[in-house]
Amino acid sequence: MGIRVGLLGLGTVGAGTAAILLAPQGRHPLLQEVELRWVGVRSLTKPRPLHLPSGILTTDLEQIVRDPEVDVVVEVMGGIEPALSLILEAIAHGKHIVTANKALMARHGDDIYTAANQAGVYVMLEAAVAGGIPIIQALKQTLGVNKIQAITGIINGTTNYILTRMQEEGGEFADILADAQSLGYAESDPTADVDGLDAADKISILAGLAFRGRIKLEDVYCEGIRSITKVDIAYAEQLGFVIKLLAIAARDKAHPDQSPPRLSVRVHPTLIPKAHPLASINGVYNAVSVVGEPLGEVVFEGPGAGAGATASSVVADILQIAAMIKTQAAWQVGIENQSDRSQVSLLNPLLSCATMEYCEISPIEAVNTRFYARFITSDQPGVIGKLGTIFGHHQVSIESIFQKDLRNKDLPNTVAEIVVITHDVLEGNFRGAIAEIQQLDTVQSIPSILRALEQSL
Amino acid sequence: MGIRVGLLGLGTVGAGTAAILLAPQGRHPLLQEVELRWVGVRSLTKPRPLHLPSGILTTDLEQIVRDPEVDVVVEVMGGIEPALSLILEAIAHGKHIVTANKALMARHGDDIYTAANQAGVYVMLEAAVAGGIPIIQALKQTLGVNKIQAITGIINGTTNYILTRMQEEGGEFADILADAQSLGYAESDPTADVDGLDAADKISILAGLAFRGRIKLEDVYCEGIRSITKVDIAYAEQLGFVIKLLAIAARDKAHPDQSPPRLSVRVHPTLIPKAHPLASINGVYNAVSVVGEPLGEVVFEGPGAGAGATASSVVADILQIAAMIKTQAAWQVGIENQSDRSQVSLLNPLLSCATMEYCEISPIEAVNTRFYARFITSDQPGVIGKLGTIFGHHQVSIESIFQKDLRNKDLPNTVAEIVVITHDVLEGNFRGAIAEIQQLDTVQSIPSILRALEQSL
Repeated sequence: MGIRVGLLGLGTVGAGTAAILLAPQGRHPLLQEVELRWVGVRSLTKPRPLHLPSGILTTDLEQIVRDPEVDVVVEVMGGIEPALSLILEAIAHGKHIVTANKALMARHGDDIYTAANQAGVYVMLEAAVAGGIPIIQALKQTLGVNKIQAITGIINGTTNYILTRMQEEGGEFADILADAQSLGYAESDPTADVDGLDAADKISILAGLAFRGRIKLEDVYCEGIRSITKVDIAYAEQLGFVIKLLAIAARDKAHPDQSPPRLSVRVHPTLIPKAHPLASINGVYNAVSVVGEPLGEVVFEGPGAGAGATASSVVADILQIAAMIKTQAAWQVGIENQSDRSQVSLLNPLLSCATMEYCEISPIEAVNTRFYARFITSDQPGVIGKLGTIFGHHQVSIESIFQKDLRNKDLPNTVAEIVVITHDVLEGNFRGAIAEIQQLDTVQSIPSILRALEQSL
Repeated sequence: MGIRVGLLGLGTVGAGTAAILLAPQGRHPLLQEVELRWVGVRSLTKPRPLHLPSGILTTDLEQIVRDPEVDVVVEVMGGIEPALSLILEAIAHGKHIVTANKALMARHGDDIYTAANQAGVYVMLEAAVAGGIPIIQALKQTLGVNKIQAITGIINGTTNYILTRMQEEGGEFADILADAQSLGYAESDPTADVDGLDAADKISILAGLAFRGRIKLEDVYCEGIRSITKVDIAYAEQLGFVIKLLAIAARDKAHPDQSPPRLSVRVHPTLIPKAHPLASINGVYNAVSVVGEPLGEVVFEGPGAGAGATASSVVADILQIAAMIKTQAAWQVGIENQSDRSQVSLLNPLLSCATMEYCEISPIEAVNTRFYARFITSDQPGVIGKLGTIFGHHQVSIESIFQKDLRNKDLPNTVAEIVVITHDVLEGNFRGAIAEIQQLDTVQSIPSILRALEQSL
């Protein structure tokens, strides 16, 4: 028996997906039983990068999601609508879903999973996060026997590309963003990437799977990279760090016994020690570290985007569903009511998403983290002492505090630049100290406050 | 319904496995339906690191593999016998198998898979390679939609620990091996590790899964790290490399169209460019790079051994089987002949191993690789010219050839040390050139010949 796929969208990822499905030789043999039945597009006349069998291209997307012959609907259109309506319609017609749409799943995953569980169909989204890296399957299946402690990822290629170039070339954010836009590495409206929103979508999806609770996107703390300057990158370099945009989801250790666990979920630029496995992830590459008990830490790295890598994950999900359909078909012989998929328990619990409860998310003030802060102060004795005293009053333990010769040449001579690195401290305490420091006459400005990571692996 | 596990062995991995099964809270909820029914050991009186429920410890291993109540037999005893007989007996009694035994699976995987396919049971072995890194599942499932081109791994922790310490401390192999033995990082008989045999077992397993053909262990070229000296590590360092024991399985590009593909499968110490993702894998950590089309390269890194990490993989396999049993049980309602698992097609094709054919393995002479070679020669003009001429005659393209001031102080003044790095060349050609160079009066010895890797990711 064949498994029939209806593909919604024929952009970069859609074309990559079709290319794999149309050339199954040398791949998993089960792919030979997967048939690309429909490809839904907006325009039949637009030139396409690949040759499709005749009769499968259509502009009638509604008809694809309703076609009784279609087993799996693959949504690679992007955007919220009409993707959401088409997916819900497909689920209502008993289709399994494969999607690469992180924005949609981060916002409407709850509705989609609920509908899918009622209909007894799978919703698979390996391609929604970290392109070709099989992190979703690992979290749902292999790593699921662990108590996951934390997920830390570089999961936005555009910002990693910009930060890598700032690091390597010593350039400023705005210039490199403009160049990245002209080269096609950043969108003309770069907001979703550089403000961390795309990473927030993705970490909410990863956190939901790893901690088996749903995540409200508005609970995710999100800080982008627009404020990163070459001065801070140079300081970080001197101190043995690189700056990366990290997405982090971690158990809140102050509330260890909640179920689903209480989490801290956040996206922000972070100083990473150079020997940390994530520090060497450069350019558009993605990487995800998972720390679990009793496993320890595993790190996955690879291409975070691109037609081939993302299509690899889309087709991997199709393959998972095809394997289940095929296995069940063998068992199904003799069952009278073959089309009854209305019981959730008929789904493989490692592929389905039965979680209904939301995770409670701790406020950013409850996070324990190291900080890097840069202060512009009057160049007079006693300033460092004042900073140290205020941090001490707020229970902020300082790892190092110093004033370097690297002082910004644009500043007048009477001004000093002081950099502080703290140990792991409660963010709320640190913020309290900063609020008090801002009141000091001797402190002119605090151009940078960034979080920093401990060494790991 | 519960899924009942019979555990054979309660050493490090067995105890780690039991610990997870006995404390399922906070892990995948399906684990709560998995019951540790039996733990088979040699001695009932030996002190154990964990508290087991009463009545499950037994020395009657035969009874475990025959117990009609047991669904899954987990073999973590190690060694060939009695593990092999017990596994075959368990399969004959319809039990699914989870094993961490790479030596057994590399030598007898063929018999075991054949028996399992006939009996309609799964044989899972995530824990056999790279400890807690979920590389087996990735190769069998997610990455299987790609045409895999190459797998390159650091998959033996002992040798990586020794090479890392040689690199960091500048010590010699024998001294650091002795210290590693005293610290418990190397066995008293270190042969399996330092001669590359353990890595050969593991790469034959990975290659079999990635390329969907079986691998004869005796076809795997295997070279250990005993001959690596601190002189070579220092040279490599100067040239921008580190030396690692790599296990490599790659399609033989000279024979692109065979099915299953013709491969090169080999284990040998290798110079790796420092910016390569595998270069920073230090100590007992493992890492595996997979290059596929259209995916590109993904790299997995993590703990390669240890109770927690390996047990995580063992229990992940139990979970996979439990998920299938549970899913099928739901479908099974209404089927008359519930115990008939004699058809291979009843198994999920992403979990089972249906491959029967052996891969043809190319001889080491057919490998294309870079080489590093160190020559002790007379210190007289024209030697470099002679080397260059002979390499040229044998179609060996040289990347760099030089004579450094780092010359070994133990050597007399009339002797020079020359290091050559080649481009990718056919190993057979290189060997031909070396044979001719050995005949030169001016060449006293060739203490080191090592392969080197191109940059990647």
